[in-house]
Amino acid sequence: MDTYDEDVTIREVGLRDGLQSIGRVLATEHKLAWLRAAHAAGLREIEVGSFVPARLLPQLADTAELVAFAKTLPGLTVSVLVPNLKGAERALASGADLMLLPLSVSHAHSLANLRKTPDEVIGEIAAIRAARDAAGSSCLIEVGLSTAFGCTIQGRVEPDEVVRLLRAALAAGAERIGLADTVGYADPRAVQELFERCLAVAGDKLTCGHFHDTRGLGIANVVAAWQAGVRRFDACLAGIGGCPHAPGASGNVATEDLAYLFASMGVPTGLDFAALIALRERVAEWLAGETLHGAVWRAGLPKTMLTAT
Amino acid sequence: MDTYDEDVTIREVGLRDGLQSIGRVLATEHKLAWLRAAHAAGLREIEVGSFVPARLLPQLADTAELVAFAKTLPGLTVSVLVPNLKGAERALASGADLMLLPLSVSHAHSLANLRKTPDEVIGEIAAIRAARDAAGSSCLIEVGLSTAFGCTIQGRVEPDEVVRLLRAALAAGAERIGLADTVGYADPRAVQELFERCLAVAGDKLTCGHFHDTRGLGIANVVAAWQAGVRRFDACLAGIGGCPHAPGASGNVATEDLAYLFASMGVPTGLDFAALIALRERVAEWLAGETLHGAVWRAGLPKTMLTAT
Repeated sequence: MDTYDEDVTIREVGLRDGLQSIGRVLATEHKLAWLRAAHAAGLREIEVGSFVPARLLPQLADTAELVAFAKTLPGLTVSVLVPNLKGAERALASGADLMLLPLSVSHAHSLANLRKTPDEVIGEIAAIRAARDAAGSSCLIEVGLSTAFGCTIQGRVEPDEVVRLLRAALAAGAERIGLADTVGYADPRAVQELFERCLAVAGDKLTCGHFHDTRGLGIANVVAAWQAGVRRFDACLAGIGGCPHAPGASGNVATEDLAYLFASMGVPTGLDFAALIALRERVAEWLAGETLHGAVWRAGLPKTMLTAT
Repeated sequence: MDTYDEDVTIREVGLRDGLQSIGRVLATEHKLAWLRAAHAAGLREIEVGSFVPARLLPQLADTAELVAFAKTLPGLTVSVLVPNLKGAERALASGADLMLLPLSVSHAHSLANLRKTPDEVIGEIAAIRAARDAAGSSCLIEVGLSTAFGCTIQGRVEPDEVVRLLRAALAAGAERIGLADTVGYADPRAVQELFERCLAVAGDKLTCGHFHDTRGLGIANVVAAWQAGVRRFDACLAGIGGCPHAPGASGNVATEDLAYLFASMGVPTGLDFAALIALRERVAEWLAGETLHGAVWRAGLPKTMLTAT
């Protein structure tokens, strides 16, 4: 731990990972307000939705409209999730800056989630890369290796398989890679060991850690990945994004908790804590009745940080 | 992180730190059942109460009876909190194995909590050491440096002052030292830096980390202290022990979450996770209506750990 002055980027994924796990459909006007306030709070990467069929995820049917608005916010990297070539074509047409392609390392989860084996998804990534290049687009292709630390369906996921698919994703044209603990199975040791192995293969193309807080280790796992050299993390305001296999458990690590963690350690994130907490309050109103998570919003900042700013 | 095979000890402090922060008085029979079940779950250090005047903390008035019972449990180190010489005399008479003496590094907190300055408390520690030696007792003297990472009254606490009082406590006769983040102000960087400084002074006499999870960083702080070399941690079942200055915030790190953390990392604690969860359920019944905390009890162990045992 000796690189406290290096910037850390937090990508807000609440509008995608968070809202897709909540049954109700949040009105587009609220999503636009969320985007505006998140940008004003200093967030410079936001995943605004998914290009999936609206019949599967009606919560995210307005993704193209959100991309269009997000593109007007200065300095913002606009990220969308894309499950296949058809979705990638919509993403390219929308003008998004980055496509996130999920690649489940768990064979069983891959079949359940995308009805494709991991190796079939690798083929799709290659097709998406070819389409992106043919379109002359600068939209970045990021592959998120999901269930990298284990799977609620298949159980154990072998690190060797993570590395094999990481190599295959890079060969297929991925420009960025993230490792995701989709179901909250990771611990700091597993995070350190897997990120170190994958960083040795992917170098600076491995840029993102995505952690769920299902069993309370989310923040500790972020710290372990940060210690391994990761400088970019996904998070959701209010810790939404619950796992259907763990009723009542937390979802993603909470954006405001990560902002507090890094601020307390003196690591720059560019985030305005008070603005994030104010936005959290609005999100809590919009999602009234849903179970929210996160810790620091209850207690507030320590006196030491209040007097320092 | 490369000493995963070294044992870690978790000291259950719910019967003291937890119950003192809850208004209701838990019946002695329930406390005895708690002790019995905690021991059966593998806990080998338990803080059973405080020797403070019963008019101040009626919740802990049965401490002597609990010590007497706890002494019958094989292999158990029976710990009690002692605020002054009078309490120490009661602890020595009770036959407890270890006295924990709190020493607030924050001048303001020390006055509010014990009506003594930190240096006056150092004088009391010396008197307690003399009384222990005169009694021919083998009861260990542990000093807990509380508010070591900041204070809700005074704000910032200087690491230099932590080190000064650490040296003074050792000179006054403390045989063990712990650092406590009493109000949940610590972060992994602060933990690493302060523990490293204090370990350089106290060596293997610095044996304990005590973390509150007020702002969600409790588990990450435990990991940071563990990385610095600490192998013994305080925790409360169900994360009780709330801070009166942070309504609704968590208390101590939850015993069952620490048990899960270390088990997942392959670090031996000797704890039976299922037995801890079963005890947590009983505690939740006894304390029905109180706000409990902790994360892993909701989601349960990962499938990977269930099939491994």
